[in-house]
Amino acid sequence: MKKMIAEFIGTFTLVLFGCGAAVIAGADGTTGIGLAGISFAFGFALIGMAYGIGPVSGCHINPAVSLGAVAAGRMQVGEAVQYIAAQISGAIAAALVLLTIATGKADYSVAINGLGQNGWGAGYLGEYNMAAAFLFELVATFLFVVVILGATGKGAPAAMAGLAIGITLVVIHLVGIKVTGVSVNPARSIGPALFAGGHAISQLWLFIVAPVLGAVAAGFLFKAGLLDQAE
Amino acid sequence: MKKMIAEFIGTFTLVLFGCGAAVIAGADGTTGIGLAGISFAFGFALIGMAYGIGPVSGCHINPAVSLGAVAAGRMQVGEAVQYIAAQISGAIAAALVLLTIATGKADYSVAINGLGQNGWGAGYLGEYNMAAAFLFELVATFLFVVVILGATGKGAPAAMAGLAIGITLVVIHLVGIKVTGVSVNPARSIGPALFAGGHAISQLWLFIVAPVLGAVAAGFLFKAGLLDQAE
Amino acid sequence: MKKMIAEFIGTFTLVLFGCGAAVIAGADGTTGIGLAGISFAFGFALIGMAYGIGPVSGCHINPAVSLGAVAAGRMQVGEAVQYIAAQISGAIAAALVLLTIATGKADYSVAINGLGQNGWGAGYLGEYNMAAAFLFELVATFLFVVVILGATGKGAPAAMAGLAIGITLVVIHLVGIKVTGVSVNPARSIGPALFAGGHAISQLWLFIVAPVLGAVAAGFLFKAGLLDQAE
Amino acid sequence: MKKMIAEFIGTFTLVLFGCGAAVIAGADGTTGIGLAGISFAFGFALIGMAYGIGPVSGCHINPAVSLGAVAAGRMQVGEAVQYIAAQISGAIAAALVLLTIATGKADYSVAINGLGQNGWGAGYLGEYNMAAAFLFELVATFLFVVVILGATGKGAPAAMAGLAIGITLVVIHLVGIKVTGVSVNPARSIGPALFAGGHAISQLWLFIVAPVLGAVAAGFLFKAGLLDQAE
Repeated sequence: MKKMIAEFIGTFTLVLFGCGAAVIAGADGTTGIGLAGISFAFGFALIGMAYGIGPVSGCHINPAVSLGAVAAGRMQVGEAVQYIAAQISGAIAAALVLLTIATGKADYSVAINGLGQNGWGAGYLGEYNMAAAFLFELVATFLFVVVILGATGKGAPAAMAGLAIGITLVVIHLVGIKVTGVSVNPARSIGPALFAGGHAISQLWLFIVAPVLGAVAAGFLFKAGLLDQAE
Repeated sequence: MKKMIAEFIGTFTLVLFGCGAAVIAGADGTTGIGLAGISFAFGFALIGMAYGIGPVSGCHINPAVSLGAVAAGRMQVGEAVQYIAAQISGAIAAALVLLTIATGKADYSVAINGLGQNGWGAGYLGEYNMAAAFLFELVATFLFVVVILGATGKGAPAAMAGLAIGITLVVIHLVGIKVTGVSVNPARSIGPALFAGGHAISQLWLFIVAPVLGAVAAGFLFKAGLLDQAE
Repeated sequence: MKKMIAEFIGTFTLVLFGCGAAVIAGADGTTGIGLAGISFAFGFALIGMAYGIGPVSGCHINPAVSLGAVAAGRMQVGEAVQYIAAQISGAIAAALVLLTIATGKADYSVAINGLGQNGWGAGYLGEYNMAAAFLFELVATFLFVVVILGATGKGAPAAMAGLAIGITLVVIHLVGIKVTGVSVNPARSIGPALFAGGHAISQLWLFIVAPVLGAVAAGFLFKAGLLDQAE
Repeated sequence: MKKMIAEFIGTFTLVLFGCGAAVIAGADGTTGIGLAGISFAFGFALIGMAYGIGPVSGCHINPAVSLGAVAAGRMQVGEAVQYIAAQISGAIAAALVLLTIATGKADYSVAINGLGQNGWGAGYLGEYNMAAAFLFELVATFLFVVVILGATGKGAPAAMAGLAIGITLVVIHLVGIKVTGVSVNPARSIGPALFAGGHAISQLWLFIVAPVLGAVAAGFLFKAGLLDQAE
């Protein structure tokens, strides 16, 4: 139960602060925090939670990470299902709170300003096509989970893992916001999509499939003993 | 006494550097450091002090944090009162020093440029309404104190706490400067308000009530054993 | 074998995320992440990998670093050759994946937008001449390898090395992107050059010679016992 | 001897990268790294060196810090004199190398673009007056040295000191570049001033006197047992 509360709060924080930075503080480089500021928001929210709730649940706050941990043989499927339920619930709650804060401003409209949802194609940020979006999410999640499993594995300084993982999430956002808005985390995509609707819903499958495939591939790499400090 | 000197210097630094970044270095993205730069200033000032004075006082430098620690059963009320007195004194001294530096520039006027005070509504940054301001401060302080209590609790690497907490303060600012200027710290609001006057005084209550409620709620969550490594 | 997989993935990540930030997220300060964002991307990619694959291979992900380690007497030549082969392979693979993602956008052309390749002279960023480019790469790699050998040597806190080294790579980019795009790493230069062609190929020698000279000089300094904690 | 080499290289790096970021990468927020980028460059250069040469010399790379350490009773005067000689030499060498790189660009002129020198008054950045400049340098150096002495003292996690100190240097720059360009370090001011000439020389005294007074005051605070973990 304690672990589920932790995962709920952690994913809540990631979505509220990450998507909140995009929605509230804006991507406009002149008067807002810009794409770099949004990138730091996502990664720094993860760092805070890695140390705040990490001692309780390990701070996955990402269904792809939990499934990658299963693939690596570090987590049971049953526990992963519980984690994922808590993560998605936290993401939805965060989207709702963000919507409430954002509508406290006269000129806000979800239809126009969005809610930090992921996407691709015409009208979405850099207008990259679906193949580029899929490839980016697949590769980025794979590398993200390599860092997660490596930094929390044998021979790595455990105290630094949360920092290294959050910093990796920053750089993934620095690269990819224009491509997909960056998911690498199905829960982070589901929360805002439910309220944003439209393309955010019809394109949601990619932000579940690609991150999970990338994460599971990384998990198997470690399971196979190809990238760890086993012996 | 040593602890009160430490809390005075720590809060002094947070307000001088945080509000100073806003007042001196400016929120103009083209020739100033922008909202992201100001966000880093607040969080980085906290990180510096967490390691500089943390060994002496624990570096609360925030009345809400001290009250959250009381709620969590980690601090006595009497000591919290002393801490809070030192924190508010430090914040006021910092606002005075900042005012002195800022007026060393010909075109500076508190009435026009402010002193980094918090606020909401018409004329204040993003012009969010009071409900949004209250909700943001409440939720952000709750999550901030979750990180503080978790990162300094059992099972967390103690050496990393100051870094994780300061990074969390960065992300809170990245998200919320346009909403309230971000307080999550009554002392940080009181210092500049005394010299800025006007709305900064009439709206000051929110930056005392909301952060304290959020912090105490987080404290009770830990006290109740719902989010810690107790057993 | 495991070490070569690790070096391949690490260098792949550095080039995909570092050059990817430049190509995808752009150097335009108004709507992109700017030179500072690109600087963070390179350094943060290194930090992630330092903890993700560092426990396996030490995370050189840079032929100059491996040769510097040889000069310092910390690595055998035979192993360095294997490392360098894996590093260059990873960099080329990353450039190919980046090219694939970047061409998922209608208005992308390698001829016009480049692939994050290094260079100097007329038409290249700050238009610095060859002597300045050589001097910068030589000195910056020397200092970079001083940090690497010092931070991973006796008396330094081993857990912090990856962070300190990555942060150093950030500052080197903050200073030098306008001069050469910053290499300090032959593999990072070779990958994009193969696909960008033109000046990126004809100028490639400098980004092999200068970094290697700088790195080896730093290695000898440590070998000579002039900058370590030997006794 | 080893310590002096370390202090020379460390101060060389701080000035080359810090001032280099200002001179080469520029303060123009649209096409350069801006004031925030320059702030990170100074602090991150310090972090790299704290771990790279810190194990050898402690990485003062700042005469004010060495004198503050003397005041705190942690260093002998004789050793401080040697340190300061190495620091000033390193700063001068760095300014010379920076000048060499900068003049590798056709439109560079020290008279117009400067060399990252400190200053105040008409024509210098924010055009703050001398009193504001003095007060800022005094207070900022005092707080900087409080962090240095506290983070390297009893009860603080030694491994984190370099990071906390460098992050503090970032925030000091975020606040104060418009006021004085930020010195808090006489060596950092002397190096560029020798080549920039003019006001940089006539105003140099302030960047020696104010930082030294602030640093020594912090040292005495610790010496007096008012801000440490002595008992």
